[in-house]
Amino acid sequence: MDGDGMRKLLFCIAYCGTNYHGWQVQENAITIQQTIQNAIERIFQERLPICGCSRTDSGVHANNYYFHMETSSKIPCTNIQRALNTYLPKDIAVKSVHEVSRDFHARYSCCSKEYVYLIWNAPYHSPFYESRALYYPYPLSTSGIKEAMHFLEGRHDFTSFCANPLSTDNIRTIFHTSIEQDGFMLKLLFHGDGFLYNMVRIMVGTLLFVSEKKFVPDDIPQILAEKDRKKAGKTAPPEGLYLNKVYYNKK
Amino acid sequence: MDGDGMRKLLFCIAYCGTNYHGWQVQENAITIQQTIQNAIERIFQERLPICGCSRTDSGVHANNYYFHMETSSKIPCTNIQRALNTYLPKDIAVKSVHEVSRDFHARYSCCSKEYVYLIWNAPYHSPFYESRALYYPYPLSTSGIKEAMHFLEGRHDFTSFCANPLSTDNIRTIFHTSIEQDGFMLKLLFHGDGFLYNMVRIMVGTLLFVSEKKFVPDDIPQILAEKDRKKAGKTAPPEGLYLNKVYYNKK
Repeated sequence: MDGDGMRKLLFCIAYCGTNYHGWQVQENAITIQQTIQNAIERIFQERLPICGCSRTDSGVHANNYYFHMETSSKIPCTNIQRALNTYLPKDIAVKSVHEVSRDFHARYSCCSKEYVYLIWNAPYHSPFYESRALYYPYPLSTSGIKEAMHFLEGRHDFTSFCANPLSTDNIRTIFHTSIEQDGFMLKLLFHGDGFLYNMVRIMVGTLLFVSEKKFVPDDIPQILAEKDRKKAGKTAPPEGLYLNKVYYNKK
Repeated sequence: MDGDGMRKLLFCIAYCGTNYHGWQVQENAITIQQTIQNAIERIFQERLPICGCSRTDSGVHANNYYFHMETSSKIPCTNIQRALNTYLPKDIAVKSVHEVSRDFHARYSCCSKEYVYLIWNAPYHSPFYESRALYYPYPLSTSGIKEAMHFLEGRHDFTSFCANPLSTDNIRTIFHTSIEQDGFMLKLLFHGDGFLYNMVRIMVGTLLFVSEKKFVPDDIPQILAEKDRKKAGKTAPPEGLYLNKVYYNKK
C-alpha cells in the first residue's frame, strides 16, 4: 500500500471460454472481463476497472490468466478471492489474489507467455472435450509437426502468422515448443516473449497443413520470410487454445 | 450371424451424463438410452430396442459403457459407428461397434466393472470440471481414505452401502480399490464383480466421513456388519462418478 491508501491487486484466474465472447468488454456480448467487473462491483460497491494481461478470443480458454486492479478497500485478499468465487459463474475461478507494487502492470510487466493447443485425435469425438479441444479425426504426423515446430523457434518476423499485422513490429521470439501425446490427446506447447493476434492458432493451422502434406517442415523458413499471411496455413479453431502460463519479472 | 439372418451388435460408448436423467428410458425426461434409440431409429428406419450393461443415475458419466442390439440389417459396423456419431449429440460418443455371438448379453455376460470417482480438492472450483467431479474444498486425509478403502475390499454383504436393498442378495466382491492424486484431482477407483444401487456413491460418502473424522477406518467392518444403510455415510453426489470399464468373459 502506498501513501495515498491505494492498493494494487493481482488476480490469477482460470476460465473455460466457451460461453464468452473473449476477454475484452464489448457491447451486446458477454465477456470474461465484464463478468468479473460485475462481480467486483458487488463486492466493492463501486465500479472498478480491471486490466488484463492479454486479450483472448471468443471460445479460447485459460489455465492461468492475470489481471490487476486498484482499490482503496482494505478487504483482505483471501476474502476477496472467496467472495469472487461465490459471485462468479462456475466457468471462471479465481486461483489467487495478491497485493503487488504500484508500478506492476498485468500486461506490461509480463516477460513471456505459454500457450497450449489441445487436439483430440481419435476416430470419434470426446464427450468430455467438446469445445475444449480441436476434434481432428484424421491421421496426424507428429514427427512432421515436431520438425516444423523447431523451425518456428527463435527470433523471427511473424507477419505471416498474424491475422492483422497493423503494427510495424511483428518480431517475436519463441523460446521453446513441444508436443506431447496422452492417449488420443495431442498437446502442442508454445513459450515465447509475446504473440501476435491469432499467432498461435495460425501456427497450429500451419502445422496441421504440414501433417496433411500441404507443406513440408522445410517450408516454414520460407513462409516466415515472405511476411505474408496468405502463405501460412488456416487459422485453427479457438476451442483448442489455452493461455497456460504468464511469466513476470517481479510482482 | 445366425441362420435367421439376425446379428447381435455390441456398442461401446462414452458419455457426459450432465444433461441426462441417467441411462434408462423414462417418460418426460431425456435419457441416454432414449437418445441413442432415436439415433438408431434414424439409421435403421425401425424402432430397435437396445439393452445396456447397467443403469446409471442422473448426472453420472461413462468412459466405457456397453449396450447390445439385434438387427437383420447388413450395414457394416464401421458405417453404423460413423452414422451414430453423426446423429448423436456431442456429449455421447460411440467408441466401437462389434458383432458378437447371439448368446452374449451386455448385462448378464459382464463379470466385473470398474468405477472411478473424481474429487476436485482445491480451495477454488475448477472451470473445466464443473459437473464432472465433486468439488470438495476442505482438507482431505488421503491416508485415512486409503486405509478405509482396504476394509471395503473383499467379499462382503454391502446392504449398508445400498440405497434400496430390496433383493436378498447384497453380497458383492470388491477385487481392488486405489486412490491417485494428480494435482488437485483425487481419483478413487473401485473394481468389483457387481455394485448395488448407489453403492459407489455411498462408499465415497462414507470415505469422506472418514476424512472428516466422523468415522475412523476401523469402523468400516462394523458398518458392513450392521447391514443398515443408516450406519454408513452420505451418498456422494453423482457428478464425480464414472463407469470406467466393463469386463466380459467373452464377446
